[in-house]
Amino acid sequence: MRDVAIVGVGCTEFGEMWDSSFRSLFIEAGVQALSDADIKGKHIDEIYIGNMSAGRFIAQEHVAALISDYSGMSELHVPATRVEAACASGGLALRQGYMAVASGISDTVVVGGVEKMTDVVSNQSIEILAAASDREWEAFYGATFPGLYAMIANRHIHEYGTKREQIAQVAVKNHYNATMNPKAQFQRAISIEKVLNATKVADPLTLFDSSPITDGAAALVLVPAEKAHQYTDTPVYIKGSGQASDTISLHDRRDICTIEATVEAAKTAYKMAGIQPSDVDVAEVHDCFTIAEILATEDLGFCEKGEGGKLIEEGKTELDGDIPINPSGGLKACGHPVGATGIKQAVEITTQLLGEAGDRQVDCETGLCHNVGGSGGTATVHILSREA
Amino acid sequence: MRDVAIVGVGCTEFGEMWDSSFRSLFIEAGVQALSDADIKGKHIDEIYIGNMSAGRFIAQEHVAALISDYSGMSELHVPATRVEAACASGGLALRQGYMAVASGISDTVVVGGVEKMTDVVSNQSIEILAAASDREWEAFYGATFPGLYAMIANRHIHEYGTKREQIAQVAVKNHYNATMNPKAQFQRAISIEKVLNATKVADPLTLFDSSPITDGAAALVLVPAEKAHQYTDTPVYIKGSGQASDTISLHDRRDICTIEATVEAAKTAYKMAGIQPSDVDVAEVHDCFTIAEILATEDLGFCEKGEGGKLIEEGKTELDGDIPINPSGGLKACGHPVGATGIKQAVEITTQLLGEAGDRQVDCETGLCHNVGGSGGTATVHILSREA
Repeated sequence: MRDVAIVGVGCTEFGEMWDSSFRSLFIEAGVQALSDADIKGKHIDEIYIGNMSAGRFIAQEHVAALISDYSGMSELHVPATRVEAACASGGLALRQGYMAVASGISDTVVVGGVEKMTDVVSNQSIEILAAASDREWEAFYGATFPGLYAMIANRHIHEYGTKREQIAQVAVKNHYNATMNPKAQFQRAISIEKVLNATKVADPLTLFDSSPITDGAAALVLVPAEKAHQYTDTPVYIKGSGQASDTISLHDRRDICTIEATVEAAKTAYKMAGIQPSDVDVAEVHDCFTIAEILATEDLGFCEKGEGGKLIEEGKTELDGDIPINPSGGLKACGHPVGATGIKQAVEITTQLLGEAGDRQVDCETGLCHNVGGSGGTATVHILSREA
Repeated sequence: MRDVAIVGVGCTEFGEMWDSSFRSLFIEAGVQALSDADIKGKHIDEIYIGNMSAGRFIAQEHVAALISDYSGMSELHVPATRVEAACASGGLALRQGYMAVASGISDTVVVGGVEKMTDVVSNQSIEILAAASDREWEAFYGATFPGLYAMIANRHIHEYGTKREQIAQVAVKNHYNATMNPKAQFQRAISIEKVLNATKVADPLTLFDSSPITDGAAALVLVPAEKAHQYTDTPVYIKGSGQASDTISLHDRRDICTIEATVEAAKTAYKMAGIQPSDVDVAEVHDCFTIAEILATEDLGFCEKGEGGKLIEEGKTELDGDIPINPSGGLKACGHPVGATGIKQAVEITTQLLGEAGDRQVDCETGLCHNVGGSGGTATVHILSREA
């Protein structure tokens, strides 16, 4: 197994991109990544695309071939593979690309994620996203993702005495971080009162506890570590990669306050990287709802189970805290184009590790990306570092 | 890179399976494959699932986690990854599983494919399948797959003097082969007249030139070749694996009578296996329409371009011919559950290589599987052999 490096990153603005199509979004991110790595299409050996549901959002499957084609690469005939695990599709693309380079099968791999979610009306989006749950045993009975995560929040409050204000503070922190991210969907700070008094979506969660519907795309160029300096003076290395699954239904879990897929994926990634959670300097985690960030900080080992509320209340996950979480603004405020999120997280961590994150820059040498599908049926964890 | 062996196969009956659900179909195929390899779920390191459009057929995404869960493996937390390239999704799953074992990342991998297509009405199926084409430049203008392949057929007739009867003979041969396949959707022989006089679907193709709408699933167990004899006395080895892409739109091809993705994927697979087309003893090829089998025999190198019509007319692709094609009945008569087809092809070739194909058995030591997505935006080719 070879070491793998990231030598180029690209990311579109996230938001309601009325003037961009699915394909134009991806091309924009891909061109940025290739130009960042200073390579051309003809150097690419393989493409992996994370996408959750272009089939239902824009009536288009076969999207990896589409993207390869519209990137002008049809005559190169490179293998182009779409991977999908709901909102963890981007994380899966990163892992498959990592494996392709690590194994020696491919030398230069583009991994990307893309979702165009605003071409359908809002209630349709919720129905489409419900396909990430167990259709027969959750969605058909009326459970939506806000409802599922609301149950987790209620249980966490009951079990650990987590305060409603602590949960809301996740949104406040992430909106604040996003004020310094020019690509974020929401670049305005909000208060705890604003979160608590917003329209209830599923009790106790309000609109401001929820990540938005977003269009966007992101891409990375991966190469073997030993060749990284041919492309850039500042490669970032993938030191660990983990993926795990669990029951697709929330009601089948041993404990709904623990996402075991996260715990297992993290265990694999930490072991591969030879580090402990305390060695992580910055993390982008999967805050599809505010409560999900609290779970993630616990399941990734940044605090004990049940202590996630306290961790945020004490300011430890802020930009200048012990373990800054979601400097980009996270899914909550940067936006959540579901298939793109896992790749965008890696773009943000790479940018942070390179010291190029502007006003939201944190002090870091090792970063972590954490991507979840559904209510935890799938999770991926990647560890990135400036050190080879 | 390690050599990889197939040590277990499973396949459901193909057809309109009103009494089976998406998940029950896959479990049936998976249990067969595990039982064939004499292994239990706890031995599995990773799962790859080929599926084109569960999102639109049954409103369910995140299907690899679903399948891992319903296989009773949720507590094992194995990585479960869905891959998709329209009708080539099964071929992609086989290639990703091959890579996972070959690279040393995983030791025991289940690769599967599944599609449940009959839970929607017939005109919806055609619309869903049209998502494999370029939605903006083909499907929106009314092009369906029968229409696209009909254009290829007309051009092949014009360019090479291929006879309508030669094209129809593909259906006759494949229906005949399927009379000996107890899992095939159509187990009745038909005549050339029957094909020619059937309802026109898109001139010159009739209903009997077209593969059907099918429910079904198939699965394989892959392990490193050096461990294969721990599982079975009769492993089958994957000697070559190729995947390639091309323009997603038919109108953008250099030549619509050549599927360059097939040519390129075959080149990779033949080179890896160190063989020539003439070394192949039997092949399952992607006959989504009769004309597609003629193209495949040419693009895979079993005859010169333009000679595919003559090849079938002379009987060379029959069970006792020089190069038997589609002994299972192919997509045409065995059926075409789109995500499952690429895996079912490998099940059939493995069964043939092991001499277990009953009345449709051909004399063979080396076999080939060829899977196409859309009108040729993606293709995979795998070479299987009894010899390590």
